[in-house]
Amino acid sequence: MMTETLAFTDGCLELIDQTRLPAELVIRRCQSVDETFDAIKRLVVRGAPAIGIAAAYGVLLARDPDGSVSRQSYYDAIDHLAKSRPTAVNLFWALDRMKAVIDSVPRDEPLAARLLREATAIHDEDRQMCRDIGRHGATLLANCHRVLTHCNAGGLATSMWGTALAPIYHLHAAGHAIEVFADETRPLLQGARLTAWELAEAGVPVTVLTDSMAGSLLKSGQIDAVIVGADRIAANGDAANKIGTYPLAVLARYHQIPFYVAAPSSTFDRHLADGALIPIEHRDRDEVARPYGVQLVPDAAKVINPAFDVTPADLITAIVTEKGIIAEPNQEKLASQLGW
Amino acid sequence: MMTETLAFTDGCLELIDQTRLPAELVIRRCQSVDETFDAIKRLVVRGAPAIGIAAAYGVLLARDPDGSVSRQSYYDAIDHLAKSRPTAVNLFWALDRMKAVIDSVPRDEPLAARLLREATAIHDEDRQMCRDIGRHGATLLANCHRVLTHCNAGGLATSMWGTALAPIYHLHAAGHAIEVFADETRPLLQGARLTAWELAEAGVPVTVLTDSMAGSLLKSGQIDAVIVGADRIAANGDAANKIGTYPLAVLARYHQIPFYVAAPSSTFDRHLADGALIPIEHRDRDEVARPYGVQLVPDAAKVINPAFDVTPADLITAIVTEKGIIAEPNQEKLASQLGW
Repeated sequence: MMTETLAFTDGCLELIDQTRLPAELVIRRCQSVDETFDAIKRLVVRGAPAIGIAAAYGVLLARDPDGSVSRQSYYDAIDHLAKSRPTAVNLFWALDRMKAVIDSVPRDEPLAARLLREATAIHDEDRQMCRDIGRHGATLLANCHRVLTHCNAGGLATSMWGTALAPIYHLHAAGHAIEVFADETRPLLQGARLTAWELAEAGVPVTVLTDSMAGSLLKSGQIDAVIVGADRIAANGDAANKIGTYPLAVLARYHQIPFYVAAPSSTFDRHLADGALIPIEHRDRDEVARPYGVQLVPDAAKVINPAFDVTPADLITAIVTEKGIIAEPNQEKLASQLGW
Repeated sequence: MMTETLAFTDGCLELIDQTRLPAELVIRRCQSVDETFDAIKRLVVRGAPAIGIAAAYGVLLARDPDGSVSRQSYYDAIDHLAKSRPTAVNLFWALDRMKAVIDSVPRDEPLAARLLREATAIHDEDRQMCRDIGRHGATLLANCHRVLTHCNAGGLATSMWGTALAPIYHLHAAGHAIEVFADETRPLLQGARLTAWELAEAGVPVTVLTDSMAGSLLKSGQIDAVIVGADRIAANGDAANKIGTYPLAVLARYHQIPFYVAAPSSTFDRHLADGALIPIEHRDRDEVARPYGVQLVPDAAKVINPAFDVTPADLITAIVTEKGIIAEPNQEKLASQLGW
C-alpha cells in the first residue's frame, strides 16, 4: 500500500530522502555510521520513531578504522548517533536497546547477528505499533470526517502508517469518509511536503494551509478534531512536538475541538517530571531566513528557530499509544497504562 | 528618517516595489491606471492606508484612448481601481473621496488640479494619522519593551510611520528601549521581508520568527504586548487583518497579554454590523504551494489561501486610531469616538 520510509538490505540502510519530497522520490543509501548520523541530522530521515529505527540500523554499520568490527566500534557508533538530534527520545531508547544487547553478549561471542536481530525487532515492533495506534485512534475519530494535523507524524515518520495519521489510514481503509487538513509546518514544511505527499499517494483527500490559517479554520466549525504526533512526552503527559503544536492545542481548546496526541510508548520519558525539562533543539537561522536559498529576512534582523514546543497535558484531550487510549492524561494514568 | 513608500512626482506614481524587498530596493514607476491597478493587485504596494493613497494618485493617471483626459476617464479609473483588491476598505474610502471631487466640480471647470489637491490631502492626512497613532499608541506601550507584531503595518504600509509600528517608532525616537518580534507572516512573508527590513533600517532591534513560533514565545513570558494593524473594522469593532492575526489574539488572551489593533478611522466600515460581513480575499494557490517557484505542495493536494481573518472585538484590548484609544471596543464606543 505505501512506500516504506526505510529498509535495511545487504548491509545498507536505505532511506527515502525526505528533504527532496514532494518534488522527487530519491532513495539515499547509508553505508557508514557517519552517513547515518548525517542523514538524521539533515532530516533525510525524521520523525521520532523513524529516527530510532534508523539509528538502530546505523549501529550495524560500525567499523574500526581498519575496516574490521569490534565491540568498541559499536559503542562508539552508539555514542556518536546519540548526538545527532536532542529532542526525540526514541533515538536514545533505540540506542539503549542496542547497547543492552552488546552489554549482555559475552566478550567471545559474535555480536553482529544479535544486533541485527534487535534492530529488526525494533523495526517490526514499530509496524505493529502503527497498526495498534491506528486501531485505538480510530475509535476516537469514529465520528470525525475532517481532521487537522501539524507536521508529519505519518508513514514517513515511522515504518508504516505513522502515529497521528495511523487512525486516518485505518478509517480510510475501512471505507470511512475522512479528509485531512495539513498545516504546512514552517520552517521545514513537513506538512506541505510530506503529509500531503503520503496522504495523496494513499488516496486520502488532503488540503494544505499555512500554519497561520489554522485559527480561522478551527473557528469556522469545519474541523472535527486535531491529531498530532509527539517527539517526547514527560511523565505527567506534557508533550513536545514540532513547533506550532502548542498554539494549535490552545486554539482547539478555545473552540472546544478535541486535541489528540498519538505516540508509541517509546516516546515517553518517565524520568522527566514535566515538559519544562524536555530539551528543545534550536536549529540554524537559515531554515527560517533563507529557505531554498531565497533571502526572506534582512541580515540586520535576528531570527529564532526552536524546532519544538511543549503542549501541557491539560490541553490534551487524550493520548493514543499502541497500548490504548489515555483520556485527560496525567502521571497516574500514564504510569498505570504504560506499566511504569 | 525613513524611505517613503510612495511619492507622486511629475505625473508619475513612484512606489517601493515591496515584492523585491529585502533582497533589493527597487522603485517602480506607474504612469497609467493599468500600471497602478497591477501594482496594487500584485502587492508592489500593500497595506490598507498605502493602497488608498496609491489608488487616489492612480486616478490622476486616467487618460482617454486618444491620450486626452475627460470626466468619464476619471470615473472609469475609479471603477477599475476599486476592483484591484476586495478587503481593505481604505481603497474604497479614498476612491470615494476622489469621486466626490469630480461630482462636486461643475462640468465646465478643470478637474486635474482639484483631484491632485485631494490625493495630496489624503497623503498628508495619512502622515498626520501616523504621527497621531504613534503618540496615542505610545501611551499603551509605555511600560512595554518587547512587542510582537504580525504582517507589516509599518511605514511601508502607509505614508510614514505606519499604524501598528507607529507607537514603536515614537517610543524608539524618544529613547525608550523597545524591540520587536515579527511573525514572518506566510504566505507572502510581509513580516520577515518588510517589517524586519524597515525596523532594521530605522535602528529598532527586530527578531523574526515563523508564525508557528508565536505560541511558545507568548507562553514564555518574554512578550509584553501584541500590536497589529487592520484592513477593515466593522461597526462593532471586529477587525479583519492579515491571516494569522485571529489565532494571535486567542493566544494573547490565553496568556493574558494585551492585544492592540492600530488603524486610522478610514479603516472602519460603519455600514457593516460585524466582522462576518467583511469580504475575505482568497488568493492564488501558488502563493502557498509554490513560493519563489519552489514546489512545496504535491499537485494532488488541495490548498486554501484566505488572505485575511477576522478578530472579534471581544479579543481586542484596545483599538488605537488617530483620534485616540478605544479600550474594550464596541459599537457604542466606536460611534462616540469616531463621530458616527
